[in-house]
Amino acid sequence: MKRVAAALASLALIGSSAQAEDATSMSTSKSILTRAAVQTVAPALDKYTDDRLLGEVWKRPGLSARDRSIVTVAALIARNQTIEMPYYFGLALDSGVKPSEISEIITHLAFYSGWANAMSAIAVARDVFAERKIGAEQLPAATGPLLPLDETAEADRAARVGQQFGAAFPGIVQYTTDVLFRDLWLRPALAPRDRSLVTVSALIASGQVAQMSYHLNRAMDNGLTQAQAAEVITHLAFYVGWPNAVSALPVAKEIFEKRRH
Amino acid sequence: MKRVAAALASLALIGSSAQAEDATSMSTSKSILTRAAVQTVAPALDKYTDDRLLGEVWKRPGLSARDRSIVTVAALIARNQTIEMPYYFGLALDSGVKPSEISEIITHLAFYSGWANAMSAIAVARDVFAERKIGAEQLPAATGPLLPLDETAEADRAARVGQQFGAAFPGIVQYTTDVLFRDLWLRPALAPRDRSLVTVSALIASGQVAQMSYHLNRAMDNGLTQAQAAEVITHLAFYVGWPNAVSALPVAKEIFEKRRH
Amino acid sequence: MKRVAAALASLALIGSSAQAEDATSMSTSKSILTRAAVQTVAPALDKYTDDRLLGEVWKRPGLSARDRSIVTVAALIARNQTIEMPYYFGLALDSGVKPSEISEIITHLAFYSGWANAMSAIAVARDVFAERKIGAEQLPAATGPLLPLDETAEADRAARVGQQFGAAFPGIVQYTTDVLFRDLWLRPALAPRDRSLVTVSALIASGQVAQMSYHLNRAMDNGLTQAQAAEVITHLAFYVGWPNAVSALPVAKEIFEKRRH
Repeated sequence: MKRVAAALASLALIGSSAQAEDATSMSTSKSILTRAAVQTVAPALDKYTDDRLLGEVWKRPGLSARDRSIVTVAALIARNQTIEMPYYFGLALDSGVKPSEISEIITHLAFYSGWANAMSAIAVARDVFAERKIGAEQLPAATGPLLPLDETAEADRAARVGQQFGAAFPGIVQYTTDVLFRDLWLRPALAPRDRSLVTVSALIASGQVAQMSYHLNRAMDNGLTQAQAAEVITHLAFYVGWPNAVSALPVAKEIFEKRRH
Repeated sequence: MKRVAAALASLALIGSSAQAEDATSMSTSKSILTRAAVQTVAPALDKYTDDRLLGEVWKRPGLSARDRSIVTVAALIARNQTIEMPYYFGLALDSGVKPSEISEIITHLAFYSGWANAMSAIAVARDVFAERKIGAEQLPAATGPLLPLDETAEADRAARVGQQFGAAFPGIVQYTTDVLFRDLWLRPALAPRDRSLVTVSALIASGQVAQMSYHLNRAMDNGLTQAQAAEVITHLAFYVGWPNAVSALPVAKEIFEKRRH
Repeated sequence: MKRVAAALASLALIGSSAQAEDATSMSTSKSILTRAAVQTVAPALDKYTDDRLLGEVWKRPGLSARDRSIVTVAALIARNQTIEMPYYFGLALDSGVKPSEISEIITHLAFYSGWANAMSAIAVARDVFAERKIGAEQLPAATGPLLPLDETAEADRAARVGQQFGAAFPGIVQYTTDVLFRDLWLRPALAPRDRSLVTVSALIASGQVAQMSYHLNRAMDNGLTQAQAAEVITHLAFYVGWPNAVSALPVAKEIFEKRRH
């Protein structure tokens, strides 16, 4: 946590450091935006960043720096915003998110945000990993033992979706079962609660509230508290814009109320 | 098709090749992400790409490689994801999509996804075309003879929209008629069925299901079968994320059912 | 206005000029897309750009070039489309938008479109400002006297939101009051009417019509006429795609009708 505090207190909004520049290096991951650069255009934005976002929001007690990092990284990947990824991938690693978890978040979001979003994140993460000498031995295996499955709940989900869409859309329905719920979600490199946190954050980040009910419920079943869920939305307001955060409020409120009964 | 198979089987997720680098070359189009790069961050994602996406989805019989290319290219342009465009523009050309059709897809999506999306795609396509020595003689003319118009259907559409929005929004209503339906949609460089496929794919890719009904119906009027439409959504799940694909299911299902009666 | 006419008449779709290239310069802001480049891929798109968009839409009498610039810049920032920012930031400055207003638009959209969108815009604006020798003395102060607040209206808004969401989501509700409505919206660097224009444009650009009612009403309270609002949507159709513009029509129409009574 000391490194996090140092990072948050540092003057650099987006951390700069000597990055190996080779022929295949992504241009995006070489982008560096210093605090001085922000000041040459918008001193007010620099001040809001320093006073409110880094100086206040990130330090609110409702959510750990590790959770905030996961939420932020998920939002940036979901919105394909490579410019801030180098800084926040680094902050995530400094906040206790393991390299294997960063890797798994990207893999997870290939399915929830689209393949190209994941590929853009790969290009940035590769440089961040190289810089920190994070090697293959720290990454999750491509395959291996899976977490146990709640067969009843999954059978129920599959039956419900199958009945509604199986006849007309056999392909996506089958992949949802085989690849998503019987494989991806059971990979042990990311705890189910964190995987849900990533999914909910990505949905809010993309304005996809229609599917938030299922995943917020799942996140809370997996251990996310109501107060944490509310704080996730507060945190995201800054990263995905107020309108996306506000659109999530009535949906989350309804879930909160239903779960109370 | 041999080249497609070769491309799909190749180790490179995003094809790399010597690209002329000049002062005005877009940085985005120089981006190269190799399979090795993906493995240094997420071996699991590399495996999903190889086993499921390229090794399985692209080979499903429900949709030709040419159609899948059109759908993928449209989704990437709609989502402004330049990082994967060089590879998929190349794959499209190898799958039987003509350079004139790539050109026309970009022009079409200027109107359906926004001008800047088209411009970002231009920057990539320029390099792909240059590399393959695709010259001006292979591009659709800026103007020329148009396809015949179904005057009754268009008069009906124009009357409906005009009555609803003509008084308050004369500008967009007029442009919709003059530029979109009496010009763009009648350009012969893209078959109406393919133009509809591009439009539907872009709408799903952007989560804009509200306007999907009209365009999916139009696509099916233009020859897209129900099984193909379902397979388009399955294919898109990987490229635009599961949530966008799943949001399209109830809309598509309703269209399928209405058309059966 | 002479410079605007010159800019619109110029052959360059995206203005190119010698840009200082230093180690921290963003790759995105170095992107240059000439009219010749567009022609090597899509002569039709070049013609639509020249004939319809720059030659016609921008000259329609319903909205000034300054307003169109504000709308376009807001849309590009909301959609994170850096490729066209250098040209349109320049066109905005040539159309009477002050550097302090560009700065403030970016700061405003950090809250309405997300922090990373603002940061991407900063990277481009920095180069545009440097090129035009726009210094710190032309930027809005980070803090200072605020515009007067309509306490009754704000108390009403805060009470309504607080009653609905205050208990479950104390964080975002507090920030909405303290940072957005009692600070950001009162900063004098952008007239309330222009700030509303930016907000409405960003909402339409992102397909977030759910929150358009409140902000379009506010924009019209702040002086935007109905005809101007309609023209904003016509203008945006080209920049954010027809589907987003068309989705805004029924919402705007309902506002127009309600305000007439």
